Amino acid sequence: MKTFSVSTRERVDLVDITSQVAQEVAKSSVGSGTVTIYIPHTTCGVTINESADPDVARDIKMHLTKLVPQDGGFRHSEGNSDSHIKTSMIGSSENIFIENGKLVLGMWQGIFLCDFDGPRTRKVYMKIVEG
Amino acid sequence: MKTFSVSTRERVDLVDITSQVAQEVAKSSVGSGTVTIYIPHTTCGVTINESADPDVARDIKMHLTKLVPQDGGFRHSEGNSDSHIKTSMIGSSENIFIENGKLVLGMWQGIFLCDFDGPRTRKVYMKIVEG
Amino acid sequence: MKTFSVSTRERVDLVDITSQVAQEVAKSSVGSGTVTIYIPHTTCGVTINESADPDVARDIKMHLTKLVPQDGGFRHSEGNSDSHIKTSMIGSSENIFIENGKLVLGMWQGIFLCDFDGPRTRKVYMKIVEG
Repeated sequence: MKTFSVSTRERVDLVDITSQVAQEVAKSSVGSGTVTIYIPHTTCGVTINESADPDVARDIKMHLTKLVPQDGGFRHSEGNSDSHIKTSMIGSSENIFIENGKLVLGMWQGIFLCDFDGPRTRKVYMKIVEG
Repeated sequence: MKTFSVSTRERVDLVDITSQVAQEVAKSSVGSGTVTIYIPHTTCGVTINESADPDVARDIKMHLTKLVPQDGGFRHSEGNSDSHIKTSMIGSSENIFIENGKLVLGMWQGIFLCDFDGPRTRKVYMKIVEG
Repeated sequence: MKTFSVSTRERVDLVDITSQVAQEVAKSSVGSGTVTIYIPHTTCGVTINESADPDVARDIKMHLTKLVPQDGGFRHSEGNSDSHIKTSMIGSSENIFIENGKLVLGMWQGIFLCDFDGPRTRKVYMKIVEG
């Protein structure tokens, strides 16, 4: 298992982690396989979406905040129930394939850590498996 | 493939299944690998979220019910379109890593079966793969 | 890695791809394992849900459009931010198990490509791994 850390900058923040994942894939010398990404937090997830225009990440953050506002009449006493709910909507793991030693992403795709209760330092876990 | 059953208690219910998954991992004697969890139902999913405070699961249930109410003007005649929609928002599978023979979960993380059309007996499928 | 194409017919469209996936599994001659499905697009995802009654897919499409309308006050200039947001809510990958050379799906389950910015020709990537 590989791990790296990501610093987020806002309460709700999407950070492109594609290059860190690609670096670990390159170091692994796996030619064909799958990388699984796992976020070991309960208020932070992972998604794959457009990395070319930063307005896409901005619109995702804005709309998830509209669908799940921080002040939603929640009972959990830490005041971050919205962060937990957004995390379950986005998910904690993703799989991406590897061919010829490289991540197989679509032309516009990047991998984003989604912090919903930042800013913080977050961890990303990865496994790279041949096959 | 391993399988176990879970009894849910309400129409919308999150049940912590971490200990059952951990038991299967212990029995498998896999030291390093990945467990994949799969829910073979169309109105029931799986998520990873906080297991320490039960108010988190309560708030997730409450807010998903607000976002996708049972009476949402749906056409599907069984009256559980909301359950199908919530299932696709949460997802049917999750991956968790194994190191030193144990599940690698974050400090606050637990694995939850999410029934959206209970109470029922639900099945959980698992595969534990070395790597 | 296997790949196949799917033609979608509407802006928001769920297309049942179970038979194409099952065919690839049959051709692979893998008896026991996992198939991972990956969608290499940023406005198109994959979900598992009921394939028996087409009204379920219709209700999913309708409600996701209600939760994330196309005209949501977004900044991304291409006018498809809603499609990106729906994609992150549904997810880009799924895992399904294989036993006895066949997909292990629940009685009512089918695999759906979810186009949120169609109609278009979309690609599906798959890996079939023994284990």
